[in-house]
Amino acid sequence: MSQGPETPLLDRVRTPSDLKGYSDAELSTLADELRAETIAAVSQTGGHLGAGLGVVELTVALHTVFDAPRDKIIWDVSHQSYPHKILTGRRERMHTIRQKDGLSGFTKRSESPYDPFGAAHSSTSISAALGFKVAADLGGDAPVGHGDSIAVIGDGAMSAGMAYEAMNHAGDQGRRLIVILNDNEMSIAPPVGAMSRYLSRLYAEAPFQDLKDAAKGAVSLLPPPFREGAKRARDLLKGMAVGGTLFEALGFSYIGPIDGHDMDQLLPILRTVKARADGPVLIHAITQKGKGYRPAESAPDRGHARAKFDVATGEQKKAPSNAPAYTKVFARSLIDEASRDSRVCAVTAAMPDGTGLDLFAERFPSRCFDVGIAEQHGVTFCAGLAAGGMRPFAAIYSTFLQRGYDQVVHDVAIQRLPVRFAIDRAGLVGADGATHAGSYDVAYLSNLPGFTVMAAADEAELVHMVATAVRHDEGPIAFRYPRGEGVGVEMPERGMPLEIGKGRMIREGGRVAILSFGTRLKEVLEAAEALEARGIAPTVADARFAKPLDRELILTLAREHEALITVEEGAVGGFGSHVAQLLAEEGVFDAGLKYRSMVLPDVFIDQAKPGEMYAVAGMNADHIEAKVLSVLDVAQVAGRRA
Amino acid sequence: MSQGPETPLLDRVRTPSDLKGYSDAELSTLADELRAETIAAVSQTGGHLGAGLGVVELTVALHTVFDAPRDKIIWDVSHQSYPHKILTGRRERMHTIRQKDGLSGFTKRSESPYDPFGAAHSSTSISAALGFKVAADLGGDAPVGHGDSIAVIGDGAMSAGMAYEAMNHAGDQGRRLIVILNDNEMSIAPPVGAMSRYLSRLYAEAPFQDLKDAAKGAVSLLPPPFREGAKRARDLLKGMAVGGTLFEALGFSYIGPIDGHDMDQLLPILRTVKARADGPVLIHAITQKGKGYRPAESAPDRGHARAKFDVATGEQKKAPSNAPAYTKVFARSLIDEASRDSRVCAVTAAMPDGTGLDLFAERFPSRCFDVGIAEQHGVTFCAGLAAGGMRPFAAIYSTFLQRGYDQVVHDVAIQRLPVRFAIDRAGLVGADGATHAGSYDVAYLSNLPGFTVMAAADEAELVHMVATAVRHDEGPIAFRYPRGEGVGVEMPERGMPLEIGKGRMIREGGRVAILSFGTRLKEVLEAAEALEARGIAPTVADARFAKPLDRELILTLAREHEALITVEEGAVGGFGSHVAQLLAEEGVFDAGLKYRSMVLPDVFIDQAKPGEMYAVAGMNADHIEAKVLSVLDVAQVAGRRA
Repeated sequence: MSQGPETPLLDRVRTPSDLKGYSDAELSTLADELRAETIAAVSQTGGHLGAGLGVVELTVALHTVFDAPRDKIIWDVSHQSYPHKILTGRRERMHTIRQKDGLSGFTKRSESPYDPFGAAHSSTSISAALGFKVAADLGGDAPVGHGDSIAVIGDGAMSAGMAYEAMNHAGDQGRRLIVILNDNEMSIAPPVGAMSRYLSRLYAEAPFQDLKDAAKGAVSLLPPPFREGAKRARDLLKGMAVGGTLFEALGFSYIGPIDGHDMDQLLPILRTVKARADGPVLIHAITQKGKGYRPAESAPDRGHARAKFDVATGEQKKAPSNAPAYTKVFARSLIDEASRDSRVCAVTAAMPDGTGLDLFAERFPSRCFDVGIAEQHGVTFCAGLAAGGMRPFAAIYSTFLQRGYDQVVHDVAIQRLPVRFAIDRAGLVGADGATHAGSYDVAYLSNLPGFTVMAAADEAELVHMVATAVRHDEGPIAFRYPRGEGVGVEMPERGMPLEIGKGRMIREGGRVAILSFGTRLKEVLEAAEALEARGIAPTVADARFAKPLDRELILTLAREHEALITVEEGAVGGFGSHVAQLLAEEGVFDAGLKYRSMVLPDVFIDQAKPGEMYAVAGMNADHIEAKVLSVLDVAQVAGRRA
Repeated sequence: MSQGPETPLLDRVRTPSDLKGYSDAELSTLADELRAETIAAVSQTGGHLGAGLGVVELTVALHTVFDAPRDKIIWDVSHQSYPHKILTGRRERMHTIRQKDGLSGFTKRSESPYDPFGAAHSSTSISAALGFKVAADLGGDAPVGHGDSIAVIGDGAMSAGMAYEAMNHAGDQGRRLIVILNDNEMSIAPPVGAMSRYLSRLYAEAPFQDLKDAAKGAVSLLPPPFREGAKRARDLLKGMAVGGTLFEALGFSYIGPIDGHDMDQLLPILRTVKARADGPVLIHAITQKGKGYRPAESAPDRGHARAKFDVATGEQKKAPSNAPAYTKVFARSLIDEASRDSRVCAVTAAMPDGTGLDLFAERFPSRCFDVGIAEQHGVTFCAGLAAGGMRPFAAIYSTFLQRGYDQVVHDVAIQRLPVRFAIDRAGLVGADGATHAGSYDVAYLSNLPGFTVMAAADEAELVHMVATAVRHDEGPIAFRYPRGEGVGVEMPERGMPLEIGKGRMIREGGRVAILSFGTRLKEVLEAAEALEARGIAPTVADARFAKPLDRELILTLAREHEALITVEEGAVGGFGSHVAQLLAEEGVFDAGLKYRSMVLPDVFIDQAKPGEMYAVAGMNADHIEAKVLSVLDVAQVAGRRA
């Protein structure tokens, strides 16, 4: 482990209350130390860097002025919570972040009383903060007591309807609630949405208020008896902060924009707000993602997420890859299809890089749409595109598609509109842990009438599924594929449309048939090899479709084998459940069939490497092998099972 | 059938293009006729009245100025689409509305080319309209061609994050798009949210612009060469329409407020917008729900939805009820619990009447929260309340809970927060049809780790489930119950908490066991009577819990019977799938079991009476009886099956 930075002031902070002993000048120095410590920590582990560096001063200021854990500080999405973790008793465990049995990369209630609310999906913080505030007002019994509610939310997260819903309610309630808009828009490329432009304009037209003006603004938060004077001060502020009215229209007092890296602005304003706010307040702080670390500042994504890196150079230590990532395969396939079909277009909800649509947008800028963190709108926008004669692809991670579920049901499925869902990050995802697992999509899509649901077994299959989806105009269609690299199969020249509802036989054997849906096929084949070595050569098939099911294939497998085992990277209710329903209705169970359905277990699995997570899930090759042996009642070699 | 109103001008309208032959004065008269016709039609059928009466003039004006179906007019939620249906070739079928094989109560693509997009859940119209607009710009191939995109959206629908997401995207895109904000806030009690207050203020501060001013505003939409002059006009308008800046901040040109019942304002403004708009425009029209029909105008809900009624008096013809409605039972039980536990609080998403929380709010105003049409926020707000030590009940219809699914997973389930979900309108719902069916909640909740999922078999069970949920602090818990009246069982004095994960035996028999989950129990018992008459006395049990399953009960039923049949008011993936997973894992199928799972079929079922819908679904008593007979291979009497 490399030598850490010198951090004499930080070294004396065991809990946030230790900050209260420092002078404002010392706090500025301490913030510098915290920044260095954050960089050093992430350099050893990898993880989210840029967001944390952007809120170092804000983190110190909040923990100085407020009293966590009594006061609830809620970090939206919480990519930016690393400095907060360092200040709240977790400094020594930072080297374990995002690793198995280590700290979570996000805030987590079970990890610390200083994390009042876990957040890993965007734009939940204002809702949660308002919930805490109301609970406090109603006398709710929180273990560490009740104080102020503070949500720290990024400008990107403000594109989500959920944030608007929460502000609409909070503004109406009129309770004391502090929202800090952490606006680092200038550091994200490209900014998305009208709100984002609006925030830029606020900043462009009134770069920074000077401290006196901002304090004057804060005076407008005086309690009721002083309202008359406060009103005048507020009018003054309104005049200065052009357009603060959008937030004011929603019932918030608006203070800003202020420099989120200047402790001499942050501390007095937070102190004034703490002393005097009697309703919802929005503090608009301008920050810079990656602030203070040149390699991050100069990166296109401002050091959003890093592999382990060298602190001096910023150079990342990534393992070389052997096979193309699924995301890239999807993007290239879609580009190929779009080059021959002008109706193909694509929608992402603020994840152009993660979904590969950045590549699509380079080639077809007019046919690619980043709607912001707005899955609800994104899905229905696709429904409109489809109704208008286009062939839209909604490229959304499995876990985030949950945000657009009603739109999938109501706008897409009921109307049988041919929206194509490219579902990335299906199954367990690794370092992002339970909050990002793609466990439910097969279940929540496969029971929708008229929906076609596919899962790619490997990267070549993904190419064919893109081709299949393009040509499928009869109704909605989805295909899922995991995070990470493919298995290294030979790639086809061009995608060939698959026959809808038809699986494929992979290897023929006897006694037991294993029917795989998705990328567990690799593990299934490993298990099959091991089983063959034991004299049990299983039949292996790839279902390709969870809906419509390949009835003929499934019934044949059931008829011709003593046992049938389905395997999928999803929770119960999905592929295996549909197979069981078919088998039951066809009376296959009446006479007996050793049927088993291997699904993700009924627990939320914490972060680890994907292989480790599948070990916890009991879905790797050795588990599949063990399952077959137990079903066939063959004695197992002790200790073989992980 | 009573004599209809005299409608000489309306009688000559077969399609909207016929409107173009009328003078503006005649159009005003025609609007009056259309209002009378709408009242007469709904008086015979029941249905949504107030919303339609509020947009009579707007409907005539839109269809006069624009060219549907080439231009896409999208009615948000489409409760207000009855006048539109009358004008677009469906006048003669209005007496069938919301009935089996009749017109839908909502817009529906399969019903008419004048319905470019079906809408029954709120706040989807701007997203869909933008999709059509982009499809038009990209050369998408719509069957009836492409023109303008027009979304008509109510002020209530503006509380939903989805509408904000769409405006954020539309404002950013800058394409020509027309949004008509149909603001009848003054007619809804009580208005909800800061946005609603903001709209009131706009109207209060500048009641109506006179026509010249509004037209001047519209001049600001001049095409680019004239921008300089347009900018001046816009500044003028901005000065007049105080606070139009919220929409302008989101990139829209704002025109209004205008009187939505004055054809002399509507027609010239729509004509100007049509001629000159070159970007997104929001027209803020003030309307009155129930306008022009005194019994509706004077009703608290402004005649939102009516049973059949007498036109002269407005008196509704409702059948007397025999048993209390589930909604009322829930409300009373919750009030009872809350009277003894100050931590009990409740959240509704703009459905205080529908969920019964209006009664709760009367009794406990400080513990009841209407968050607006904002299920995403509502669920996470509850998560915050729970984390803050309260015992929150989220009372949301099954179909609308789909809007908050990600929040259920990410904020509630993963954090194991004890939010109580009171899921009304579970199963098929009748006149509202497929868009409102509560088909998926059991599937999408039961596979979430740590979730407890119950379904009430009757109204007494519901009382006990409320009591159970109040006391369950270990994690999230949900209980579902249907629309309509209970079955008339004796009601308990007070709710008694149920043992978690334990079902109950209803009647013991032989050969076949029927395991019911939810209110099909009544049908199951009817079937059991009929079967007993045939000499087959089935065992009947009520599962109560889909999660955790009553393993002992289920395995005992399986062991002691030749056949086991589960019955539930939900799609595949839910209760029956969890039972099948258990039976498979326990090896019960290995030796054979006649297992069947009766679930909602794989089709969207159109509106009808609930009993008729369950007949289509094949889930009434005679279907259950037939299922048992076929499973037991007993010859059936021909024609018995519906």
